[in-house]
Amino acid sequence: MGINFKNFLSSQKNNTKMGDYQNLDHIDGVAISTISANLYNNSRDDLVMFYFRDGANFASIYTQSKIISENIKWNLNQKTKKIYSLIVNTRNANAFTGTKGYQSMQKIADIVSLKLSEKQKEDDNNPEKISSHQVIFGCTGTIGEPFPVETIKKNISNLINQIKYTQNKYIWTKAALGIMTTDTKPKLAMEECKIGNTKVKIYGIAKGSGMIQPNMATTLGYIFTDADLTNEILKKLLQKNVTKTFNAISCDGDTSTNDMISIFSTGKANNQQISNFTDKKLNEFDISLNKVLLNLAKRVVSDGEGSSKFVTVKVKNSKTEEDAKRIGFSIANSKLVKTAIAGEDPNWGRIVMAIGKAGVEINVQKLMIKFGELIIVHNGKLYEKYEEEIVKEYMKNYAIEIEIDISVGKKEFTVYTMDLTKKYIEINADYRS
Amino acid sequence: MGINFKNFLSSQKNNTKMGDYQNLDHIDGVAISTISANLYNNSRDDLVMFYFRDGANFASIYTQSKIISENIKWNLNQKTKKIYSLIVNTRNANAFTGTKGYQSMQKIADIVSLKLSEKQKEDDNNPEKISSHQVIFGCTGTIGEPFPVETIKKNISNLINQIKYTQNKYIWTKAALGIMTTDTKPKLAMEECKIGNTKVKIYGIAKGSGMIQPNMATTLGYIFTDADLTNEILKKLLQKNVTKTFNAISCDGDTSTNDMISIFSTGKANNQQISNFTDKKLNEFDISLNKVLLNLAKRVVSDGEGSSKFVTVKVKNSKTEEDAKRIGFSIANSKLVKTAIAGEDPNWGRIVMAIGKAGVEINVQKLMIKFGELIIVHNGKLYEKYEEEIVKEYMKNYAIEIEIDISVGKKEFTVYTMDLTKKYIEINADYRS
Repeated sequence: MGINFKNFLSSQKNNTKMGDYQNLDHIDGVAISTISANLYNNSRDDLVMFYFRDGANFASIYTQSKIISENIKWNLNQKTKKIYSLIVNTRNANAFTGTKGYQSMQKIADIVSLKLSEKQKEDDNNPEKISSHQVIFGCTGTIGEPFPVETIKKNISNLINQIKYTQNKYIWTKAALGIMTTDTKPKLAMEECKIGNTKVKIYGIAKGSGMIQPNMATTLGYIFTDADLTNEILKKLLQKNVTKTFNAISCDGDTSTNDMISIFSTGKANNQQISNFTDKKLNEFDISLNKVLLNLAKRVVSDGEGSSKFVTVKVKNSKTEEDAKRIGFSIANSKLVKTAIAGEDPNWGRIVMAIGKAGVEINVQKLMIKFGELIIVHNGKLYEKYEEEIVKEYMKNYAIEIEIDISVGKKEFTVYTMDLTKKYIEINADYRS
Repeated sequence: MGINFKNFLSSQKNNTKMGDYQNLDHIDGVAISTISANLYNNSRDDLVMFYFRDGANFASIYTQSKIISENIKWNLNQKTKKIYSLIVNTRNANAFTGTKGYQSMQKIADIVSLKLSEKQKEDDNNPEKISSHQVIFGCTGTIGEPFPVETIKKNISNLINQIKYTQNKYIWTKAALGIMTTDTKPKLAMEECKIGNTKVKIYGIAKGSGMIQPNMATTLGYIFTDADLTNEILKKLLQKNVTKTFNAISCDGDTSTNDMISIFSTGKANNQQISNFTDKKLNEFDISLNKVLLNLAKRVVSDGEGSSKFVTVKVKNSKTEEDAKRIGFSIANSKLVKTAIAGEDPNWGRIVMAIGKAGVEINVQKLMIKFGELIIVHNGKLYEKYEEEIVKEYMKNYAIEIEIDISVGKKEFTVYTMDLTKKYIEINADYRS
């Protein structure tokens, strides 16, 4: 698990088929600190603090699992309007840790809010008192193990001492590395756009690929903007855009107790106040937020455990978006489809199987299946000009696009996934020693 | 794909962790023929005929897929009261073959019914004219390839010439081998019981484990009894007992276009007529049918592609059976749970994850998880006497039992599955050459 930051940076040149990640720079109102609390018993970074000196509006979306971690319970209970800090630890998911796990969040929030309030007094002429309710948490790692509350508490002073008020690509990358578990690459993305005439930034980092420790394929995604937007608008924007980004990806079809996507807005850009979600001045921001989320979500899939290919499944002309989504995920989660792709085998029969088992009414007589631009199934039959050799060549690509047209309506949905390889089994069957 | 019958029999001693299959013997009213039509371009058996000289009552349950094979469409269209023959071929699933595939079934049924009618005349003083509507089909293998109707037609005479009116274990095993695709072992099971005072036999064979050719993990199950039961009662018995047997197993969570489970009753046992499904005289038969189906279903799982362990997931004290089933399949289909079991890792965190993502309301405070007799989670927390070393020892067993108590009701459901190994990927990612 040892991720050495400097080694990493020098090793990552040309190492990502998704294209290099963008260079995130400074964003007003966000301060970052990343340290090693030695949670892995090695020196890798495992504790990251985001500190919003003047507070940030925020919205979060959490796992739909019926069993949720203690940090998510904590976050759900904080009914504050502004957040001052998000703290993310790896190695321990604080899930299935009961009352003690929840109390750990309280204890850490108490210390963090106290020490940040002190820091505000030192730094600032106009200090704001920060309450423990204004601190939220992201946790990822082993579930069921006692949460290392004492170790983390001991490291809070160091964490706060290391706060950087001005960011650059190195600080963002260090943070993105610090929240990783079995990820092999940090995930970062950014866009710039306008709200009215004001330029604003949207930055994001994410983690998620699976796990080695006995834990969840937790997805964490954190978006930061200097735009000034209300919590209500942030929530609506996040919900809308997560649907077709983070909720459209599947690595192994499993869902964590700890999944969390949040957006924080510092308001430092001083854009015009927007009171309505449908305000056209939000259009650019809406599109850019989608780009950042989709970019991050694709990076999560691309780094999916053992993956050797990136797969896009687009389902067209369904009656409802839900129908298209169901077929898309039926294909994306099929072990048979995913292994065929790993074997570079244009095994369209398995795709037909996965469409059929989704339980959605389709027009078989008009069914069309395409791999990239190549027509495979046309009008419900193997395409007369189908040439296996050409399709086999296509399957050698890193990015595979599967398009399904079920001809019963006008809706569509696109799902992103990866192939299923021996390496996935290797990673997940290894004993967590 | 070459399965040599004699080599097979001598190699199978002590080769099945499910225990040896029972020795099926003669069953009155069933005749069998198994030949090679050279569909695989080698000499393995690939064409099996079951011939019911005096007809048989019958009932079938087919795949729930929205895309079904042409042989299943044919079977669904035959509204006959009695069946005279079931013909099963491997190598080609006759799925996605359109009108031509359907017409192939008609052509073969025409020849078979004609030739069997002639045979009846030769053999019998009291011949019955057999119609093409009294012939049904099981197909399994590649989908989308043209159905080899001419090759099969050419082999019908040979198939009929080879009919054996008296069975023994070799003839049954040859038939069970003849319907295999990627199975590594034939699946046979039998029970004897009474209807009223009359002894009756229930014999069954099955196939299903996955595929190598670009095809489906088709499950075929055929049950034969000398009991005299109406089609309506057979249908109800089959539906009732498939729920907790063949519909309670999962190899890779995929569903075929060709799945088919049938029961045929020859009536030769001359038991009392039963007019009502709830008649207590059926109790023994009901239980025995369940045993045969469960025995076969477990053998299908045990022979699941690449499997190294047999896994039972019992979910107890749910509000509805459906809820228990949903949690059971969520665990059984989770790649993370299945790889952990392959790695002999008592990774109960992944089971918690799979329970949570099933979307069923549970009582977390009372949640209990057991591996065999070992308590892992008790009252929603890691059991205080949990000892990882002992549980690790347990995980080395071939048969792993996982029991979940969700404490919200009184219903239960048991699901059977296997682990997910590198060999599964190997088998399914290999190009179908």
